[in-house]
Amino acid sequence: GMTLLDRRSDKRVDSKWLSKKQSHPATVYILFSDLSPLVTLNGGAEKSQQPEVRLCRLHHKDVEQCMSQTEEITLIFLGVDLHVHTNLLAAHNGKVLQEDDEDGLVAWFALSINPTSAERFKQKHEGCYFLHPPMPALLQLPENEAGVVAQARSVLAWHSRYRFCPTCGSATKIEEGGYKKTCVKEDCPSLQGVHNTSYPRVDPVVIMQVIHPDGNHCLLGRQKRFPPGMFTCLAGFVEPGETIEDAVRREVEEEAGVKVGHVQYVSCQPWPMPSSLMIGCLAVAVSTEIRVDKNEIEDARWFTREQVVDVLIKGNQRSFFVPPSRAIAHQLIKHWIGMNA
Amino acid sequence: GMTLLDRRSDKRVDSKWLSKKQSHPATVYILFSDLSPLVTLNGGAEKSQQPEVRLCRLHHKDVEQCMSQTEEITLIFLGVDLHVHTNLLAAHNGKVLQEDDEDGLVAWFALSINPTSAERFKQKHEGCYFLHPPMPALLQLPENEAGVVAQARSVLAWHSRYRFCPTCGSATKIEEGGYKKTCVKEDCPSLQGVHNTSYPRVDPVVIMQVIHPDGNHCLLGRQKRFPPGMFTCLAGFVEPGETIEDAVRREVEEEAGVKVGHVQYVSCQPWPMPSSLMIGCLAVAVSTEIRVDKNEIEDARWFTREQVVDVLIKGNQRSFFVPPSRAIAHQLIKHWIGMNA
Ligand SMILES: Nc1ncnc2c1ncn2[C@@H]1O[C@H](COP(=O)(O)O)[C@@H](O)[C@H]1O
Ligand SMILES: Nc1ncnc2c1ncn2[C@@H]1O[C@H](COP(=O)(O)O)[C@@H](O)[C@H]1O
Repeated sequence: GMTLLDRRSDKRVDSKWLSKKQSHPATVYILFSDLSPLVTLNGGAEKSQQPEVRLCRLHHKDVEQCMSQTEEITLIFLGVDLHVHTNLLAAHNGKVLQEDDEDGLVAWFALSINPTSAERFKQKHEGCYFLHPPMPALLQLPENEAGVVAQARSVLAWHSRYRFCPTCGSATKIEEGGYKKTCVKEDCPSLQGVHNTSYPRVDPVVIMQVIHPDGNHCLLGRQKRFPPGMFTCLAGFVEPGETIEDAVRREVEEEAGVKVGHVQYVSCQPWPMPSSLMIGCLAVAVSTEIRVDKNEIEDARWFTREQVVDVLIKGNQRSFFVPPSRAIAHQLIKHWIGMNA
Repeated sequence: GMTLLDRRSDKRVDSKWLSKKQSHPATVYILFSDLSPLVTLNGGAEKSQQPEVRLCRLHHKDVEQCMSQTEEITLIFLGVDLHVHTNLLAAHNGKVLQEDDEDGLVAWFALSINPTSAERFKQKHEGCYFLHPPMPALLQLPENEAGVVAQARSVLAWHSRYRFCPTCGSATKIEEGGYKKTCVKEDCPSLQGVHNTSYPRVDPVVIMQVIHPDGNHCLLGRQKRFPPGMFTCLAGFVEPGETIEDAVRREVEEEAGVKVGHVQYVSCQPWPMPSSLMIGCLAVAVSTEIRVDKNEIEDARWFTREQVVDVLIKGNQRSFFVPPSRAIAHQLIKHWIGMNA
């Protein structure tokens, strides 16, 4: 399946369970340093295959030392494996587990360590390295592992940027397996009622394949910082008080001066840079003249269906190219050329 | 139209334009105290109509005094009127406006004032009052004004809860017409690169009409704090690293123990409590047994299509009732009874 973990948010408040799982031999740890995950190359079993990037799945014995010695670590409970059960592993580990104490669940944690520990890890675990810069490298991970990294990296990025209580400026403490952060000041207003200050952020972003009124062209743009020749769908943050559909219309008009009528949701993708939810839409233009806002993007053009088919299906990337197939922009563009094709 | 304002985010950085518009006689101010908007009752012109709640649209002369005297105000630029142009107003104001200085745009601002000024305002403007508690009262506003309040209230709530830099705990200053907030500490890491700490939060929430595998029942639930007899769609926050569809499946299983297969986006609604984006979906259940998580909800039941039609269309609310028609839950339920009906 695409989903590796059941988040089991009910376990976040069960500190006894969490601490037992932390030292359980079947528990899986994935490591982060500076928001980059520790990965390894899986030597392409079939000869025709490219070597694949995979998460390093570590165990308690591997991380015990660095967890005991420092306050600089952050530990996030990610969930339990949807497919593996420790009964299967019991023999493998050569241990007899007491039934009454053992629920068979394989817990996953993300552990963020400091640069010194990170260096030591790389030396000890041959073939492992931290995936940096994370983008677009994260797209090389298998889809189910990319989901786990999206979850872990977003929460870790939140902890790294949100150290202090935004309501009163005091220090905060981490709770509920890493999913809550509360102010340590007793009379802080953030402790009364429910506020979003205590919970990780998720920023909704719209990303849209804009279709020309003739149905046979689409609008793609590029930012200055993109690799030369890359074009992709327009995108932008949803603002407070705005619907998804209005955000699509506003962004397309702001960035390219093109007016959009009908908007249709297609699919979405979490994007952990640091914590966006990319909401993918088809948008039908009702005007065609492009006026690029140079503060936002460098260029935007109408591309014909044939040009896009050439790049996406025939792999001819001489004139331009689009993001890799794991990116939602790629999927949106493909969705469009699949329509009435 | 449903949309009252063009946000004109390009003007947020044009401080000269913003300050000119602040004192322009055509500019519209809407007032907030303690996150509640100042409204008035529009005396139901047609005799059959109920009096309608409307925003009080104030002008510079009305707010001049409280803007000059205190630091406790917060001012947000909301956009420009999509339908009104000051040329139409020039005569009305009895002023001749210089053409080269005048772009004809009618700017809207939200102004948050302290309780003392608020009290003074209520006394001075007969028939005006602050809509409190805001929910469900906000649903009484006309749809286009509700959109403006959603925008203004979300941004004001952000300023009221996010006073300090979450990265270093220092004070912050407001910029870009109220849409940005930067740390005053010169070497704060939040000032390097782009981070979400400087921008208002929007929390995506999934809300779903869950359909029984037989197609003829839907799952509605209630929280303890609801008025007696009210049932509505299940809902919950999207977590980091999660798709909309997975969030729907996780929340329905967590809250009601029901498994969901196919999920389909229907529509969305901004919900300024304090700053959610409600993403409405249809979800098809693949299991039917209900196990309510009492920590999250009080009750959840399958209702037949006839029961729902009775309540929604025939207005028979003896057995139960649902949220008012302006709420997205109402629309989702209605969408379902409209399908293959
Ligand atoms: N961004 C968020 N804002 C507020 N509550 C959140 C957020 N994310 C998760 N929660 C949880 O959702 C609960 C409130 O949900 P609700 O009853 O729907 O308002 C809180 O008690 C939190 O446990
Ligand atoms: N939540 C947010 N996080 C980061 N940038 C934001 C956010 N909301 C609005 N922005 C704006 O979006 C720009 C970055 O957009 P992008 O180039 O798509 O990463 C920033 O320069 C901000 O002006």
